Amino acid sequence: MTSPAEKFKLAPSDDPLTKFRDEFVVPTFRQMKATAVSAEIADKPCTYLCGNSLGLLPKRAKKLVEEELEVWGTRAVEGHFDHPHGRSWMYIADYVHPHFANLVGAIESEVACMGTLTANLHLMLNAFYKPTQERYKILCEARAFPSDQYAFATSVSARGYDPDDAVIALSPRSGEHILRTEDILDTIRREGSSIALVLFAGVQFYTGQFFAIQEITAAARAQGCKCGWDLAHAVGNVPLSLHDWDVDFAVWCTYKYLNSGPGGIGGLFVHSRWADLPIQEAGWWGHNPATRFDMPARFHAIRGAQGFQQSNPSVLATVSLLGSLEVFAAAGGMQALRARSERLTGYLEALLRQSRFYAAPGEAFEKPQRERVRVTIITPENVEERGAQLSLVFLPTGRGVMPRVLKGLEARGVVGDSRKPDVIRLAPAPLYNTFEDVERAVVILDEVLAEVDKEG
Amino acid sequence: MTSPAEKFKLAPSDDPLTKFRDEFVVPTFRQMKATAVSAEIADKPCTYLCGNSLGLLPKRAKKLVEEELEVWGTRAVEGHFDHPHGRSWMYIADYVHPHFANLVGAIESEVACMGTLTANLHLMLNAFYKPTQERYKILCEARAFPSDQYAFATSVSARGYDPDDAVIALSPRSGEHILRTEDILDTIRREGSSIALVLFAGVQFYTGQFFAIQEITAAARAQGCKCGWDLAHAVGNVPLSLHDWDVDFAVWCTYKYLNSGPGGIGGLFVHSRWADLPIQEAGWWGHNPATRFDMPARFHAIRGAQGFQQSNPSVLATVSLLGSLEVFAAAGGMQALRARSERLTGYLEALLRQSRFYAAPGEAFEKPQRERVRVTIITPENVEERGAQLSLVFLPTGRGVMPRVLKGLEARGVVGDSRKPDVIRLAPAPLYNTFEDVERAVVILDEVLAEVDKEG
Ligand SMILES: Cc1ncc(COP(=O)(O)O)c(C=O)c1O
Ligand SMILES: Cc1ncc(COP(=O)(O)O)c(C=O)c1O
Repeated sequence: MTSPAEKFKLAPSDDPLTKFRDEFVVPTFRQMKATAVSAEIADKPCTYLCGNSLGLLPKRAKKLVEEELEVWGTRAVEGHFDHPHGRSWMYIADYVHPHFANLVGAIESEVACMGTLTANLHLMLNAFYKPTQERYKILCEARAFPSDQYAFATSVSARGYDPDDAVIALSPRSGEHILRTEDILDTIRREGSSIALVLFAGVQFYTGQFFAIQEITAAARAQGCKCGWDLAHAVGNVPLSLHDWDVDFAVWCTYKYLNSGPGGIGGLFVHSRWADLPIQEAGWWGHNPATRFDMPARFHAIRGAQGFQQSNPSVLATVSLLGSLEVFAAAGGMQALRARSERLTGYLEALLRQSRFYAAPGEAFEKPQRERVRVTIITPENVEERGAQLSLVFLPTGRGVMPRVLKGLEARGVVGDSRKPDVIRLAPAPLYNTFEDVERAVVILDEVLAEVDKEG
Repeated sequence: MTSPAEKFKLAPSDDPLTKFRDEFVVPTFRQMKATAVSAEIADKPCTYLCGNSLGLLPKRAKKLVEEELEVWGTRAVEGHFDHPHGRSWMYIADYVHPHFANLVGAIESEVACMGTLTANLHLMLNAFYKPTQERYKILCEARAFPSDQYAFATSVSARGYDPDDAVIALSPRSGEHILRTEDILDTIRREGSSIALVLFAGVQFYTGQFFAIQEITAAARAQGCKCGWDLAHAVGNVPLSLHDWDVDFAVWCTYKYLNSGPGGIGGLFVHSRWADLPIQEAGWWGHNPATRFDMPARFHAIRGAQGFQQSNPSVLATVSLLGSLEVFAAAGGMQALRARSERLTGYLEALLRQSRFYAAPGEAFEKPQRERVRVTIITPENVEERGAQLSLVFLPTGRGVMPRVLKGLEARGVVGDSRKPDVIRLAPAPLYNTFEDVERAVVILDEVLAEVDKEG
C-alpha cells in the first residue's frame, strides 16, 4: 500500500540529480550540536533544510577560494591581468554573468554581479523611483523583509514624502496568510496613477509565496508604474524569465539557494529597454573595460546593467559564488532543478498532511483554536505559487509552541529556521537535499510534537 | 665612507618590525615571471614595491579565510550566532571596527566596515552633498582618481547641475606636478560660498602627495562647506586623525596598504557630530542589532557610522581584511609603521638621487628636455607631504621611455606599477618590505635605464 506521498518520491535510478549532493559539505549531527541523536549516527550528515537561509558549502566554492588565495600569494597584483586559472580579477564578475543570465531569464547585458542586496536595492531605487506630485507611492507587501521596508521608508522620506502616506503596504485579507494576486492587481488598477513603483519579493520570506511576477509586472506597467523585484528567496529556487516578463529591475543576494556563503556578493537585473538609462552613481567599474585603465576623465558607461557597477568586486566573494553556479550549471540549471524541487517539497507537504498533528489551514485558524498542539502550512498549496520552502505555523499560536518545537528539532539535527512568533521554515534544496532528508524531518517533527503535546 | 642614503637604513638589530615580513607570502621571481633573473635566485622572493596597488597576502588572512570555509562547512547557518572561533558572522564587521578606528584616528562608532570605496563614496555623497542654488559646487583635484571623477560628474548631473560648472577641478600651477596647499586654501576662501563639498584624496594616487587634511578641512568648514576624503592610498600608509581633524566623512578601500586581497571590503568614517544624521538609504544591517532579528517594521538606526550599514557583509572578504589588521596591530599600529616607512621611502629617494640617471624635477622639466634618458621624482620631498610611494617620471616624457623601463623592471622581478603616460610608482610597504628590497630596486632600475639609454 502506497501513501499519497509516495508519488512524489523518486527512486535513486530515476533521480540523476541526487549525485550533486556530493558536491556539498553537509555538516554532521555532531558538528551541528544535535545532542539528542544516537552515537551511531552522530557523524552522519544532519538533516539540513535551511538552504533558504544559508546554502551549504559547495566543494567547488572552497576550491576556487583556495585557488584565489594561492594566486594572490604567487601572482599578487599580476592576478588582475594574468591569472594561472584564466580568471583574471579584472574580469572576475564577467565569469558570473552568464550564470546569472540563465538563472533569472535574462540576456547577459541585463545582469551584474556586484554589491549586496540592500545596497543594490538603493541603487535601483535611486535610478527608478522618481516620484512626482501625482505619482509618488511605492506599493509593497506589509510583511516585506524589514531591510526592504527600511529602504522604502527612508527613500520616500529622503524625497520629502511621508512613509505613512507614500508606502502602500498590502496585507492578506483578514484570516488569510497569503496575498491574493487578484487583490494585488486590483490595488494596482485602483491606485496605479499615484504609484511610482511596485516592488514585491519574488518569493515571500515568511510565507514562501511565489508571487505572480509576470501578471503583477504587466499590471504595474499598464498603469505607468515601474516594477522591481527582490529575488532573495527566488533566485536559484524558482524559474524566472525576467526579460520576457518585462520586469524593470530586480536585486538579489546569493547566500541562500545560490550557496555563495555568508554575506556573499549580490546581483541585479536591469531590463534591456533601460540599457541607455544615464548612470547617476557611476564608478570606474561601470566604465567601458577597454579604456578603464587608461583612466579617461569622462565616464563611458557599459551599456546595460553592468554600467551600474561601481567598484572592483571582492574576488574571494565572487569565486565562492562562481563555484556554486558551476554546480548549478552542471546539474542542468533551474529547469531541471525545479522539477526535482517540486517533488521534494510536494513530498514534504504530503508527509506533513499525513501527520496526526496536521491541521488544514482553514480549520487551524478557527477561533477559538483547539487546545491541542498542531501544525499547519501557510505556504500556498498550488505548486505554481511556491518554491522549495514550506512555512509551518504551530498551534495554538501565540503560546510559545514554535520555540519548543524548534529546540526539539535542533537537538535532533533537523535544521530549519524560525520566524517569530509562530513560523518554522523548512526548505529542501534540490541541489543537495534528498527524499530521505524530507522523510526524517517529518518523522522527527512528529516525535517532537508528541513530546511538546505531552508536556502540555 | 657612507653615502647620504645610509642614514636612512636600519641595521637589523635596530629594526624590530622587519620580522613582520614573515607574516606575508611574497611571490618568488619565478612566480612573477621575472625571466631575466639568474637561476640561483629564481625561487627567492621578488622585489615587490606595489603594495600601493595590491598588498601582499598575509598568512593570517589566509588562515582566517580557511577557517571560515571550515565553519561554513561544519556549522552552516549556525555560524551566524555560535561560531567555534568566537567570530559570529552576525557581528563579523564589529571585529574590524576597533582596528579601523585606530588606523584612521576615530572613535569606534565613527567607522564602519562595509561595501566598497566607490559605493561608499556615493552613499556619502547622497548623505552630505545637498546642493542649493547658491552652494552647489564640488571642489576636487583635476587628477582625482577616475572613479571619483565619475562619481562627482554623475552626482552633480543627477541633481540638475552641469559638471563643467559645478565641479571645480584644481590643477597644479603650470610646470608643477603637485598642488600647493596655499592654492587649495585660496580657492576655498575665494569660492567657498558656492562650494557644497570639498573632496580630495588623502594621498594622491598619481603623485603620491599627502594632502594637508587638517588645514584643508578647517578651511572648508570655515566656509560652510562639507569636507570628505578618499583614503584609498592613505589608510594604512600615513597617520590619520580624522576625528581631531574634524573631517566630515571619509571612504576607503582595503586592498592596498591594508592587504585585504583583490576587491576587499571597504570602509567609511562619519564624524561623531553627524551621529544623528537621519539615514536616507537604510538597511537592516544599520538597525540596532539588539532587535535586528526581531525584524520590527520601523527602522531604528545604530548611532553613528554603523547606521549606514545596509547589508550583511561578506564574511570571507571581512576576515581576509581582519587577518591583515591583526598583523598591523601586532606591529604597533600606524605610528610605529610610519617611522619605518619614512626610512624606507627616504632610503629609496636618496638612492635614486645618487643614480647617474637622476634629474632634479626642476631641471627635468626644462624645455626642451635633454635627450638623454633620465628619471625624476614628482612626489614631494617633504616627508610630511608624502606616504610610502614615490612616483617616478621617465624622461624624455612622451617618448615611450616608461613602458620600456617597466618591462625591464618586470623581467628582473622589480614589481612597481605604471600610470600612463610617464609614471612608475614604487612603494615600499613598511609591514613587509626591506631596505634590501629598496637597494635592489634602484640597482635594477639603473641597469634597466642604462640599457634603455644605450638602445636609444
Ligand atoms: C584613490 C582611489 N579612489 C577610488 C578607487 C576605486 O576603488 P573601488 O574600485 O574600490 O571603488 C581607487 C582604486 O584603486 C583609488 O585608488
Ligand atoms: C527577502 C530579503 N530581502 C532582503 C534581505 C537583505 O539582504 P542583505 O543583507 O544581503 O541586504 C534578505 C536577507 O535575508 C531577504 O531575505
